[in-house]
Amino acid sequence: MFLVYRVCMTEDSLPWVSLVVHKTRLQITQDPSLVYEYLPGTGLKSFIQASLELLFGKYSPAIVENRAGGVHTVGESGAFQLGAQFLRMWRRDAQTVCIISYQKESHGLIFQDLGFKVREYCIWDPEHRRMDSNMFLDVVEQMPSGCTLVIGNPVDCRLTRPQWAKLMSTMKSKQIFPFFDIPCQGLSTGDLEEDAGVLQYFVSWGFEFFCSQSLSKNFGIYDEGVGVLVAVALSNKQLLCVLSQLMSYAQALWLSPPARGSRIITTILCNPVLQEEWKLSLKEIVENMMLIKEKVKEKLRLLGTPGSWDHITEQTGTHGYLGLNYQQVQYLIRKKHIYVHKNSRINFTCINAGNVDYITQSICEAVLATKQAEK
Amino acid sequence: MFLVYRVCMTEDSLPWVSLVVHKTRLQITQDPSLVYEYLPGTGLKSFIQASLELLFGKYSPAIVENRAGGVHTVGESGAFQLGAQFLRMWRRDAQTVCIISYQKESHGLIFQDLGFKVREYCIWDPEHRRMDSNMFLDVVEQMPSGCTLVIGNPVDCRLTRPQWAKLMSTMKSKQIFPFFDIPCQGLSTGDLEEDAGVLQYFVSWGFEFFCSQSLSKNFGIYDEGVGVLVAVALSNKQLLCVLSQLMSYAQALWLSPPARGSRIITTILCNPVLQEEWKLSLKEIVENMMLIKEKVKEKLRLLGTPGSWDHITEQTGTHGYLGLNYQQVQYLIRKKHIYVHKNSRINFTCINAGNVDYITQSICEAVLATKQAEK
Repeated sequence: MFLVYRVCMTEDSLPWVSLVVHKTRLQITQDPSLVYEYLPGTGLKSFIQASLELLFGKYSPAIVENRAGGVHTVGESGAFQLGAQFLRMWRRDAQTVCIISYQKESHGLIFQDLGFKVREYCIWDPEHRRMDSNMFLDVVEQMPSGCTLVIGNPVDCRLTRPQWAKLMSTMKSKQIFPFFDIPCQGLSTGDLEEDAGVLQYFVSWGFEFFCSQSLSKNFGIYDEGVGVLVAVALSNKQLLCVLSQLMSYAQALWLSPPARGSRIITTILCNPVLQEEWKLSLKEIVENMMLIKEKVKEKLRLLGTPGSWDHITEQTGTHGYLGLNYQQVQYLIRKKHIYVHKNSRINFTCINAGNVDYITQSICEAVLATKQAEK
Repeated sequence: MFLVYRVCMTEDSLPWVSLVVHKTRLQITQDPSLVYEYLPGTGLKSFIQASLELLFGKYSPAIVENRAGGVHTVGESGAFQLGAQFLRMWRRDAQTVCIISYQKESHGLIFQDLGFKVREYCIWDPEHRRMDSNMFLDVVEQMPSGCTLVIGNPVDCRLTRPQWAKLMSTMKSKQIFPFFDIPCQGLSTGDLEEDAGVLQYFVSWGFEFFCSQSLSKNFGIYDEGVGVLVAVALSNKQLLCVLSQLMSYAQALWLSPPARGSRIITTILCNPVLQEEWKLSLKEIVENMMLIKEKVKEKLRLLGTPGSWDHITEQTGTHGYLGLNYQQVQYLIRKKHIYVHKNSRINFTCINAGNVDYITQSICEAVLATKQAEK
């Protein structure tokens, strides 16, 4: 039993694809008037615009003042690669990258390959089984001035608004450059605006930043890697300079990005009816996920598993921590053939009606076994 | 009138797409059993295998001995990016790249960005209006030992077999590493085997090499950038080492390549009926192109344009030189609004029944005008 898939799974253990994506894909394929030319280096203009509006909302100052732009990239790795190449060339005095993340991320390797010094910080508190927002604020205090700070899925950091304000003021004073990762907008809380809301604070505080926006996971277009490297600058003039540089890097990387996924997404986002269908499908999958988490917690309680399991339902998003220690994880892997990360992070959508009993029973056994061993 | 499009154009001035591609795309889209998971980092295995067999033939020693492999890349730029990253790391003592090409190529910029010294050589002889194969052999003699030599579309170089042999022996003795570019197999001569035949010589001489194989142009899947970086090693063991390195670079660049184009191509190549249809469509487009070239030559003759125009039909491929000088090109651009490269290279498929009269008339005027100016 493999619980660490990267993508959202359905009840039948298949990668989830929004139904409206299937419909739109078929419609586009049947369109006889479609021209299959190379896209421009930065991607479809309408796609970039639609993605930016999804991320910031139509009336964000960044969009109204024309100082947010983007380059279509091949997935989120492509976005980090592109952003990292830009930072290496244009922030030569700031070659340290700090990454707030839940596990060793491939993003770190991209920066490392390009010659950056990479420091990774984990803000999961295994004792209290929660994201420690104070730890977050503390580690930022210790970061070197002028570094780049990669913040993976900000909504999962669970900072309150005053805490974000404190963070931003520290970052301002230390001239830390933020590089966000929005890997699955809408799949964390089910609310598109809430999942990317943090970016609004940064815009309103007058930050420049990069953001890797992936649209593969929240539409279910995994096999085409649809990403955008979003750049927010302080003025339209600055933005154009940044974009022109990014375009030349993108051309060297892949000349022009794959078009199909972006066509599907643009069609959905630009059509209010299709967009509504898509949003409903997102809500549905998130509700399913919450139900599964509730079930896991309830079953663990009924089995009399020692300890509190509230952290399971308190975490947002498809991926989260079971809150087990190393011995318990080893027990699951070796004795039960349930494969989870060694920090007990799993993809909750891999659990379904067919396997929830076996999984909760095994977790219970694992916890009891290690409790006994401790005695 | 824009005659420098990168892709093959139809009579109606639209990018050419093989009909069988449309059919297959629709069939794949309607397949309810298709799983839209991320592809592995190197791409679909069956796609790589089919591409290699297309390039080398099923019974090439490189394939039979399991020492040819490939990584699915995002277009040919992606292939050069990946290959260049590998060479930078693993051939540290050989940081010069020589490029045989017909114009300043974007490939040169990719190598340059990665810190290579790039030298470009043009082997078009404007006086005799032909590829000068002796010049090719001469410039290779002058190249530094141990450099990388990029050979763009080898069939266009028009070397005879003994000339290739001479070239290979020079390259062997100077330990020059070949990096081929096969941008549109089948579109040069209409014969798939002939277009990539040179690679066979290099395999039989025991060369290791890279080859960027693009399948976007010869299938008409421009908007998805379907490329393969092909690696031929001296043994299977060496090949596996190379591929494992390439995979880690590819993961940092785009994690997993876009799947759709490769699925279409695999379906066509693995089905003899579809493959035959595709080959016929290739033949058709090449015959059309030859017809257009004949027409251009004939019309220029009938108009009494001074000089010989045999070089137009002697060149293979969609792109070729008109054989005009700088003044004549300027005349076409400024007075006739016919846009061609300053070296007079054009895409012949941009000429069709609707514009051939205007174009030949203009060329004739341009030549006469400069002749008069010379007097």
